[in-house]
Amino acid sequence: MRRALLAFAAAPLLLGQAAPVEPPVYNAADKIIADAPAAHWLAIDPDDIMVMETAAGQMVIQLAPAFAPAHVAAIKTLVRTGQFDDGRISRVQDNYVVQWAARPDPAKPRAAPLPAEYERPLQGLNFTPSPYADTYAEAGFIAGWQAARDAKAGPNGGSVWLAHCYGTVGVGRDNPPDTGDGAELYTVIGHGPRHLDRNIANVGRVLAGIEPHAALPRGTEDLGFYKDEASRVKIRRVRLASQIPGFPRWQMMDTASASFAAVNTARANRIGFFVRPAGAADLCTLKVPVRPIP
Amino acid sequence: MRRALLAFAAAPLLLGQAAPVEPPVYNAADKIIADAPAAHWLAIDPDDIMVMETAAGQMVIQLAPAFAPAHVAAIKTLVRTGQFDDGRISRVQDNYVVQWAARPDPAKPRAAPLPAEYERPLQGLNFTPSPYADTYAEAGFIAGWQAARDAKAGPNGGSVWLAHCYGTVGVGRDNPPDTGDGAELYTVIGHGPRHLDRNIANVGRVLAGIEPHAALPRGTEDLGFYKDEASRVKIRRVRLASQIPGFPRWQMMDTASASFAAVNTARANRIGFFVRPAGAADLCTLKVPVRPIP
Repeated sequence: MRRALLAFAAAPLLLGQAAPVEPPVYNAADKIIADAPAAHWLAIDPDDIMVMETAAGQMVIQLAPAFAPAHVAAIKTLVRTGQFDDGRISRVQDNYVVQWAARPDPAKPRAAPLPAEYERPLQGLNFTPSPYADTYAEAGFIAGWQAARDAKAGPNGGSVWLAHCYGTVGVGRDNPPDTGDGAELYTVIGHGPRHLDRNIANVGRVLAGIEPHAALPRGTEDLGFYKDEASRVKIRRVRLASQIPGFPRWQMMDTASASFAAVNTARANRIGFFVRPAGAADLCTLKVPVRPIP
Repeated sequence: MRRALLAFAAAPLLLGQAAPVEPPVYNAADKIIADAPAAHWLAIDPDDIMVMETAAGQMVIQLAPAFAPAHVAAIKTLVRTGQFDDGRISRVQDNYVVQWAARPDPAKPRAAPLPAEYERPLQGLNFTPSPYADTYAEAGFIAGWQAARDAKAGPNGGSVWLAHCYGTVGVGRDNPPDTGDGAELYTVIGHGPRHLDRNIANVGRVLAGIEPHAALPRGTEDLGFYKDEASRVKIRRVRLASQIPGFPRWQMMDTASASFAAVNTARANRIGFFVRPAGAADLCTLKVPVRPIP
């Protein structure tokens, strides 16, 4: 954790220590990412990107139809029919989630009860294991996503699911057997709550713009719900990137690529500032690089 | 992740779903904590509690002299000589840290170079292993703290250290061999950055009041530093609880107690809302219960 000399107007540089060497070398992952060949990146379909404009800022979310096809389809319908417009951020719980909801409108369609898309068979997907141990399951990556696997849950390689990490987007639901209809969503703003894995339809992750939303005031009611309408943050408009002319194209690193393996090794073995590299990194720390296509 | 029906003034309860059952039963840990006998709690020395009043609110921090005695002593000297008063929160980096610094004052003493208290021998402490696997080391608990161990690092049970989790407080430093002097501190506001373990003098954890600080605007400069003096959040005053007449006494659960083991089991096997208990929980999820003495 790097120090910085505070530039007090009246008393600069009085801490009596040498100014820090700039820039800090936390690790070499940034360079590996910058140098990765084009073949190690996967384009993200603009129809799988949801762009949310709120009173706090813009949040760009990538949807994951391979993991929760019915929920993602329901969310896209809600977006296309404008049902998130004038919705609200209703809940901000510290070290947990920011949660928001579409605006109720009886004239517009909502999904029928959806299947419990909390995990899926591995079959048809390619699982790249993380080299490091995981507390909860077998950690790894599938087609650009942080995922986990239970090899014993069924034939042909078992069952897989998206992991709950900082920035993961999931579907709010009531107690079982409710599975949520996609009209209430949340993103994680704290330590990865992996105990939610296989209990929620995870539908995506934040690509950009989580910061001003993670910095919203925490709600004062149970579970961080805001107390009154005045506290709730307005959602101005939600569209798919495919509906927005000129919206930037995004890409994610291919998690089966040599570049991604090298990024993970670098993150597990940080240098410069670090006197003792960890030699490992947990699943939520091994974020998949994403960026607008340069 | 629980849904809630948004109470829009004009259109309440129009989501077409049953109202949620209240209250949700996330797990039984709260009841175990409430029922734990007095013998399963450890009093926290008021001389090890730092009370920080900032423009955002009050943050109460417990110091850990057993793990970083020289750094904690230096911090207490800074507090007692008023050097954090009129300090600043200088950095807020999303999914990482809130960092603050004492006010530079050449007339007041600062610590001489301090030893690298990044880990310590287990000897003299009691390590209670977590029953669950850890990515980084051997996870466990020592006298009310989330800790980790490297049994091979030296004789008599090896080496131990405080883990970097949400709310952990560490000492900012420059590149090695600098070890920090305690005048610049941070707390974690994101996924537990365990790669910092054994690289930083961890000196404590937040007992209360992290929420308004975790909700501060993220800094716009590299590493989340605030750009200018106007952005920095003022620290009004920092005192030890032992200096504040009538300040509440605090306690922490004894991590060697049967109650704490039961809390961990409950957290690893949540019920009610959960259709598939995880059967495990990572170190940062297994927070040690703390509270004002009832």
